[in-house]
Amino acid sequence: MKIGNNDYKTVWMEGHDVFLIEQNLLPFKFEIYKSTTYFETANAIKTMIVRGAGAIGVAAGYAMAQAFLQAPENDLLNFVTKAKNEIEATRPTARNLFYATELVFEAGKISIQNAVEKANEIASKDVDDTRKIGEFGNELIKDGFSIQTHCNAGWLAFVDYGTALSPIYYANHVGKKIFVYVDETRPRSQGARLTAWELKNENIPHVIVPDNAGAYLMSKGKVDLMIVGADRIAANGDVANKIGTFEKAILAKEFGIPFYVAAPTSTFDDKCNSGNEIIIENRNQDEVLFQTGLNVKGELEKVLVCSPGSNALNPAFDVTLAKYISGIITEKGIIKAEKESIALLLKS
Amino acid sequence: MKIGNNDYKTVWMEGHDVFLIEQNLLPFKFEIYKSTTYFETANAIKTMIVRGAGAIGVAAGYAMAQAFLQAPENDLLNFVTKAKNEIEATRPTARNLFYATELVFEAGKISIQNAVEKANEIASKDVDDTRKIGEFGNELIKDGFSIQTHCNAGWLAFVDYGTALSPIYYANHVGKKIFVYVDETRPRSQGARLTAWELKNENIPHVIVPDNAGAYLMSKGKVDLMIVGADRIAANGDVANKIGTFEKAILAKEFGIPFYVAAPTSTFDDKCNSGNEIIIENRNQDEVLFQTGLNVKGELEKVLVCSPGSNALNPAFDVTLAKYISGIITEKGIIKAEKESIALLLKS
Repeated sequence: MKIGNNDYKTVWMEGHDVFLIEQNLLPFKFEIYKSTTYFETANAIKTMIVRGAGAIGVAAGYAMAQAFLQAPENDLLNFVTKAKNEIEATRPTARNLFYATELVFEAGKISIQNAVEKANEIASKDVDDTRKIGEFGNELIKDGFSIQTHCNAGWLAFVDYGTALSPIYYANHVGKKIFVYVDETRPRSQGARLTAWELKNENIPHVIVPDNAGAYLMSKGKVDLMIVGADRIAANGDVANKIGTFEKAILAKEFGIPFYVAAPTSTFDDKCNSGNEIIIENRNQDEVLFQTGLNVKGELEKVLVCSPGSNALNPAFDVTLAKYISGIITEKGIIKAEKESIALLLKS
Repeated sequence: MKIGNNDYKTVWMEGHDVFLIEQNLLPFKFEIYKSTTYFETANAIKTMIVRGAGAIGVAAGYAMAQAFLQAPENDLLNFVTKAKNEIEATRPTARNLFYATELVFEAGKISIQNAVEKANEIASKDVDDTRKIGEFGNELIKDGFSIQTHCNAGWLAFVDYGTALSPIYYANHVGKKIFVYVDETRPRSQGARLTAWELKNENIPHVIVPDNAGAYLMSKGKVDLMIVGADRIAANGDVANKIGTFEKAILAKEFGIPFYVAAPTSTFDDKCNSGNEIIIENRNQDEVLFQTGLNVKGELEKVLVCSPGSNALNPAFDVTLAKYISGIITEKGIIKAEKESIALLLKS
């Protein structure tokens, strides 16, 4: 997608190096982070230079490929196995991460070049899949719709297009008039920072809303449709996504508003029977206690926004139970959030 | 309540002057704001130097008394009528504000001294009422309970004790082991700033949680009881309170968690038939776009926390429908959120 007049992807590989948009600096500064080793790329995942289900997966695939490129010839298997474990430990909730490391790991057993090609293939597939999600999701959007979204499941969360935002981009592209309510998405405010930034770059009318305003907006009939992304989808249709997603799904059901999850097939985990089995990552409390923003001098500054000396909880995800989900928009079509439909999808 | 070793109230009057804890600076700085005219006191309400249903009411009563003290003898009625309109225009959603200005206005028709006495009487009644709310609310709290609260309905929102927090203070005082989940309460973060500050000063175990974590906590069985305050209660039991309250009430019902509102009788508005008639205040978008906090130098600094150039919505309140409310804790006892019980309460 466009930043100014240039086309960008969130992550790409050139030679032995991986390049990533430094998402911790967005929307205030635009910088490209260059990683020369698998360890740096893994660390970029951990420190959220790259974030979002798809982009994490692709970055993890590239990190795995870098490990093969770096590995000493006489100790290759040990080296890449250790690297795989390290990469997989960075973000334990992200399904796409494991999907990518496994594919590249297996490919690398044939040749190092094969590992690199597989990592690039994962990236290309991400682009194709998210474009198709946009096309299918567009069918749910009527002209004049107001759509609410939570967190950032836009192109910044993938390689291009995104999932939850892809139908919005598609609908906008084919000339539908749409309006987007962007949940702020505390504590990391990916909605207010990244989704708003994406929508502004694409000239799509939108407004940032505090997470607390969900029931107010929905009860006033302001929201026609809600679309969110997913970090992991269990075999029974339960969906792990950014903290607050479950909350919005319950409200949407209460007010009769269609609530859709958009995700490529790679986000489904058929080994995970239900949401109960999904490990929820607890992140550092400082993400709640402090906020980083632009001060009057135009510098990034971190300020304490809570009462000094109190602690905070910071669960990064919640699990939305399948019964609250109207459907899942995939690259193969829109399916029900239920065991049979998911099993069928994964076989196709 | 205590700040350090000193006992404080949020608002009091000495001679012609009104003194207020400067709540915009809390929890980072503790300062007393002195107002010498009704206009300054009204402005203190508007700029949220004083906030919270009860404290706003008491401050408005004192502002009305100040207007009588300032009024020119030959134009008293005109002067105080104009002042009344100005005071009432500061925060249109707060029921207690109108209750106080009306009482003091009527009292002043007898004598100026009578207006001042009535304003002091409103302040004393606030203290008595909130203490009784604590006593009644304590009956809902079992030893070992975890209680969730939204925004700040503690003593800072009243003159002393508070409403939603008063039962918590009472339970703590009588030796029950309790734990409090404090909703951050974006955009002004009164939970993270004021409620956490109050609880820390009283040594009550608590943790700040992002507003998004409500469904997660409740679904995991972490919350035994939720208590919130109210800005205005309609005759049918609908409750206007801080944005996000409605959201939490819906979740509490979904997970079978008792959801109580704590408020003195003065918060009930029997002229208001239902929540539909309550005007929701839309505040400045900068409260969402910017956050003020303490920087590394220990100075208060305002930083932009959203994507530059995007707009934000900032509805300050929402209306929780009566059907989601387990009961209302008043200074006269706990009642159901329904027309008949409320009518009976207001007659007693």
